[in-house]
Amino acid sequence: MKIALAQINYHIGNFDSNVKKIRESIMKAKRGGADLVIFAELAISGYPPRDFLEFDDFIERCQRALDEIASDCEGIAAIVGAPAFNPEFQGKDLYNAAYFLNNGRVEKQINKTLLPNYDIFDEYRYFEPNKEFGIIEYKNKRISLTICEDLWNIGNNPMYTVNPMDELMKQKPDFIVNIAASPFHYDQAGQRKAILLQNVEKYKLPLFYVNHVGAQTELLFDGGSLAMSPRGFVVEELDYFNEDFRLIDLNKIEGAAKPEGTQKSEEKIILIRKALVMGIRNYFRKLGFDKAVLGLSGGIDSAVTLVIAAEALGAQNVYAVLLPSEFSSSHSVDDARQLAENLGCPYDLIPINDIYDSFMKSLKLQFRDLPFGIAEENIQARARGVLLMALSNKFGHILLNTSNKSEAAVGYGTLYGDMNGGLSVLGDVYKTQVFELARLINRGKEIIPENSIVKPPSAELRPDQKDSDSLPDYDVLDEILYQYIEMRKGPSDLIGMGFEESIVRKVLKLVNTSEYKRHQTPPILRVSPKAFGMGRRMPIVARYLS
Amino acid sequence: MKIALAQINYHIGNFDSNVKKIRESIMKAKRGGADLVIFAELAISGYPPRDFLEFDDFIERCQRALDEIASDCEGIAAIVGAPAFNPEFQGKDLYNAAYFLNNGRVEKQINKTLLPNYDIFDEYRYFEPNKEFGIIEYKNKRISLTICEDLWNIGNNPMYTVNPMDELMKQKPDFIVNIAASPFHYDQAGQRKAILLQNVEKYKLPLFYVNHVGAQTELLFDGGSLAMSPRGFVVEELDYFNEDFRLIDLNKIEGAAKPEGTQKSEEKIILIRKALVMGIRNYFRKLGFDKAVLGLSGGIDSAVTLVIAAEALGAQNVYAVLLPSEFSSSHSVDDARQLAENLGCPYDLIPINDIYDSFMKSLKLQFRDLPFGIAEENIQARARGVLLMALSNKFGHILLNTSNKSEAAVGYGTLYGDMNGGLSVLGDVYKTQVFELARLINRGKEIIPENSIVKPPSAELRPDQKDSDSLPDYDVLDEILYQYIEMRKGPSDLIGMGFEESIVRKVLKLVNTSEYKRHQTPPILRVSPKAFGMGRRMPIVARYLS
Repeated sequence: MKIALAQINYHIGNFDSNVKKIRESIMKAKRGGADLVIFAELAISGYPPRDFLEFDDFIERCQRALDEIASDCEGIAAIVGAPAFNPEFQGKDLYNAAYFLNNGRVEKQINKTLLPNYDIFDEYRYFEPNKEFGIIEYKNKRISLTICEDLWNIGNNPMYTVNPMDELMKQKPDFIVNIAASPFHYDQAGQRKAILLQNVEKYKLPLFYVNHVGAQTELLFDGGSLAMSPRGFVVEELDYFNEDFRLIDLNKIEGAAKPEGTQKSEEKIILIRKALVMGIRNYFRKLGFDKAVLGLSGGIDSAVTLVIAAEALGAQNVYAVLLPSEFSSSHSVDDARQLAENLGCPYDLIPINDIYDSFMKSLKLQFRDLPFGIAEENIQARARGVLLMALSNKFGHILLNTSNKSEAAVGYGTLYGDMNGGLSVLGDVYKTQVFELARLINRGKEIIPENSIVKPPSAELRPDQKDSDSLPDYDVLDEILYQYIEMRKGPSDLIGMGFEESIVRKVLKLVNTSEYKRHQTPPILRVSPKAFGMGRRMPIVARYLS
Repeated sequence: MKIALAQINYHIGNFDSNVKKIRESIMKAKRGGADLVIFAELAISGYPPRDFLEFDDFIERCQRALDEIASDCEGIAAIVGAPAFNPEFQGKDLYNAAYFLNNGRVEKQINKTLLPNYDIFDEYRYFEPNKEFGIIEYKNKRISLTICEDLWNIGNNPMYTVNPMDELMKQKPDFIVNIAASPFHYDQAGQRKAILLQNVEKYKLPLFYVNHVGAQTELLFDGGSLAMSPRGFVVEELDYFNEDFRLIDLNKIEGAAKPEGTQKSEEKIILIRKALVMGIRNYFRKLGFDKAVLGLSGGIDSAVTLVIAAEALGAQNVYAVLLPSEFSSSHSVDDARQLAENLGCPYDLIPINDIYDSFMKSLKLQFRDLPFGIAEENIQARARGVLLMALSNKFGHILLNTSNKSEAAVGYGTLYGDMNGGLSVLGDVYKTQVFELARLINRGKEIIPENSIVKPPSAELRPDQKDSDSLPDYDVLDEILYQYIEMRKGPSDLIGMGFEESIVRKVLKLVNTSEYKRHQTPPILRVSPKAFGMGRRMPIVARYLS
C-alpha cells in the first residue's frame, strides 16, 4: 500500500484556499499511485478555529467542503480532519472528527477521544469526547485512526483516564495513523517524537503522522510529519517550517532497518529563529499585507526584530524609523542607521523632541513644577507609538512590536508606547535569548553592529538610564522568570534554588502586578512551552504574590 | 436546624482578606445559633483564580487557609469551596471541592462533577470531574452538597451525559445545598432561579443556594443567594450587588407557603447600571486605587461613563478631561462642561490642536501632500490617549475607557487612542442601550445635557463627520450585532430575518476584521451573555465572513 502524507499550511476559515490545497494534494497523490493520502487534524477549517466553532454556519461550510473533497476520492482514499455536529441530544454540540473518504463519499467518521484543554488548547470548550472505538478496513489493511492527543496519554503523567490505542488494539490494526495539530515550541519536536516512539514501542505497529505547518496568529506549526517503523525508526520525515508532501510505501516502513546516519537535531536558537521568520511571514501573508514598520532604537531588541522581519518579508519591505529623543545617545542613532544600511531596509529619522515639548506645554497647568518621572518617560515612548502608528495607517504597514519576554514579564514597557504593534516578534523570547539570536545573526558576518549587542541595555527615557537600575541582571532575572512562568515554581521553591528572597519577591510581584499591561499587548509568536497570550490566563485584579 | 448563608465579596488570591471575612461570618453565625453556615464555590481562592491554579504554591495556600477556617468550626459546621489536589495518578491535577467542616476539622470533601467549559468558564482546564457521589450526614439530616453547574444539567439542552442529583437522590437526602460562582448578565438571575426551580420541582427538596457577590475584573457576581421551598417558592433571597448574610430555619423552608406579594424583577437597564457601578468600584478598590480619569467629549458614551463612575467612586474622585480639536463642535465642549458641573466632578480643558500640529510637522517629510485620512484622524485620538495616560501616570488615576459595544464590535475606534484605559465600562453595552442608560440617568432630573443625547453620534475627527456616514443606523446595527455575537447567527439566518444582504455582509466583515483591535483593549465589564473578552475567543488571522 502506498501512503501519501500531505503537510499543508492552512488558513483558518478560508475554505476556498484550504479545499484547493487539499484537492491538489489528492491529485498529486493519485498521480503518484497512492492508495491513501493523509491530511492533518481539522484541516478543512484550519487550526485552531476557536469560537468560529460556535457558529452553525461555520460547521456547515466545513461539511460542504468535506463533501467537495470526498467527490475527488475515486481510486484513492483520503483521511482529513473537520469539525462535525454531534447528533446526540446530550453532550457538547460537536466532535473533532477524522473522516475516511473513499468511493466519492464519506465512508467512516472517527472522533477524537482525548481533548486537550490546557495551555493554548480549549478543545473541551467545543467537543464531546469520543467513547466508541472503530477500525477502518481498507484494501486488506486495518487502520487505527487517531487524532493528535489520542496518542499522548502515555508515559509518566497521564492526564486522562482512558487510552484510545489500548481500545483500538483489541481490533488488531495493521498500522496507526495520527492526524495532528501540534504547535511548535523549542522542545516540542523532540517531545513529539518521543511520544510517538513510546506508542510504536508499546504497540509494535508502523505509524503515519501528519501535522500542520505554518503560523496561525501566535501559534506556530512546524510540520515534521513522519512515518515511523514498528521498531521505532523515523524512516521518513517531512520538512520543518515548510509545506511538504511525501509518498511512502507501507512495506518499506514495516520492514525498515535503522536509517543510516543519526537524525540531526538543530540548535534551539536556530529553531526559534526559523519559527519567528515563519510567524511573521504567515501573519502578513494571511492578512494580505506585505510591509512592516518598526521603531529602531539602536538597542538589541529592535535590531534583532528588524533582521528577522527582513528575512521574513524582504529587507525592502521593512521600514525602520529612528525616533531619538534628547535622552538618546548619539551612538544609538548611528548603530540603528548602520543596521538599516547593512540590511538594505528603508529608514527615516524623526526626532521626537518637538512633540514631547508640545505635550509638556499642553500639560503645564496640570503638571506644574512636579519632578520629571514615569509620566514624562511614557510620553516619549507614546509619542513614538503615535508616530509609528501614523506611518502604519498612512502607508498600510503593520507595526511590529519589539518588546522581549523579560520586559513583558516584569512590565518594563510603556502601554500604548513601545508595547504597540500588530504582532510581537520577541515577546516569547527572553532577553538572554535575544542576545543569543543576535550572536546567531552575526555568525560569519557583523550584521547587527557589535555596539548594539555589548552596550548595557537601556530604555533611554531619562539621563543615563540603565535597565540594571531597576531590574536584576538579565541572567538572574530570566532564570527566575523561567522557573516562575514556564515551570510554575512558587517563591519557596525559588528561594530553595538559591535565589535571594528579596529579588524573588520583587520579580514575582512585578510579574503579577503587570498583568493589566500584558492584557493589552499584541499577539506574541509562541516559541516556548509557556508564552504570554492565549496559553497563560491570569486574573488582572488579584492579590497573589503581589 | 438553623442554616446561615454568607454572601461575600472575595478577592482572588488575597487569602488574608478572604479568610478574615469567612471567619467573621462563622462567628456571626455562631452568635445567631446557626448549626451550619454556607459559603460560595472556591470562596477561599476567589473566583475565577484562572492559571494561579497551576501553581502548587497557590493550592497549598488555599489548603492552609482551609485548615485555619476549620479550626473555628467547633459547635458549628461550615461548607466552603476551595481547590484541592487530586490524589490519583491519572487525570487532571485538581478537584473543584466543597468542604464540610465540623469538630474543628475537614470531615468531608465533595468534588464538582459538571465542569463548565464554555463562554467565560475554563474549569476543565484545571479540574478532574467527580465520579463518586456521597451524602453528608449532620445532626440527623442528610445533605446533598452540589457545586454550581452540578444542578444545571436539567431542562432542554443537556451539555453533559450525567446528572449528579439523580445519583445523589439514591441516598435519600433531606435538602440540597448548592455553592456557586454564577456571574451576572442581564438575564442570568432569572435563568438561575428557573434552573433552581426545575431542580426543586424534580427532587421535591428544600434548596440552599450561596453565590459570590462583587466584581473580579470583567466578571460581575450579583449575589442573589437564596433558600427555596420544596414547593418552589423563594422563601429567602439575599441582596443583589451587595454582601449579605441570612440566618434561616430549615423547618420554615420545608413548610413554606407561597410568599406574599410577587417578587419584583428589576428592569434590565437598571440591573446593567447597578452591575457597572459595582464593577468599577470593585476594580478600583481591589487594586487599591481611588481615582479615575476619563476623556469627556460631549458625546453620550463618555457622559454615561462619567455618571456611572461618579456613582461608583464619588464625583470628586472622577477627573474629566475635555480634549477638543479643531473638529470639535463648540456645543460638545459646552455639553461636557455642563455635565461635569452637574455632577461636581473636577475637570480640565486641554485643546489638542498644538500637539496635532506638532505631529503633522514631524511627519511632513513622510506624509508629503497626501490627503487627510484615517492616519490624521487617529493622530487626534492618540494625542488624547497620550494626554489622558500622562495625567493617569502623573496623579495615579486609572483611565476609564468609554467605548461602547457597537463600536468595539465594528472596530470603530482608535487603537492606542480612544480604545485606551484600564477598564472598559460600556464595552458590553450596545449604543442603543447606552441611550437607555442616559434616559435612565436623566429620569426625574436632567443630569446629562439633553443635547448630548439627541445629537447625531459623531467621532468629530474630521469636518461634519457622523457615525451614520460609515455605519448603518444603530437600531439596525445593534440588532445585527446581537444576532451575530450573542446568538451566533450566520449570514443566511440574518438575511432570512429580513436584514439587507449588503448590510449584513458589511457588518459581519467589520466585526471579523477588527478582531486585532479587540485583542488589545482593556477588560470589559460583562453584562451580557456574550461579552468581548475572555468569553469570546476568536482567531485574529482568519478569513471567515471577512
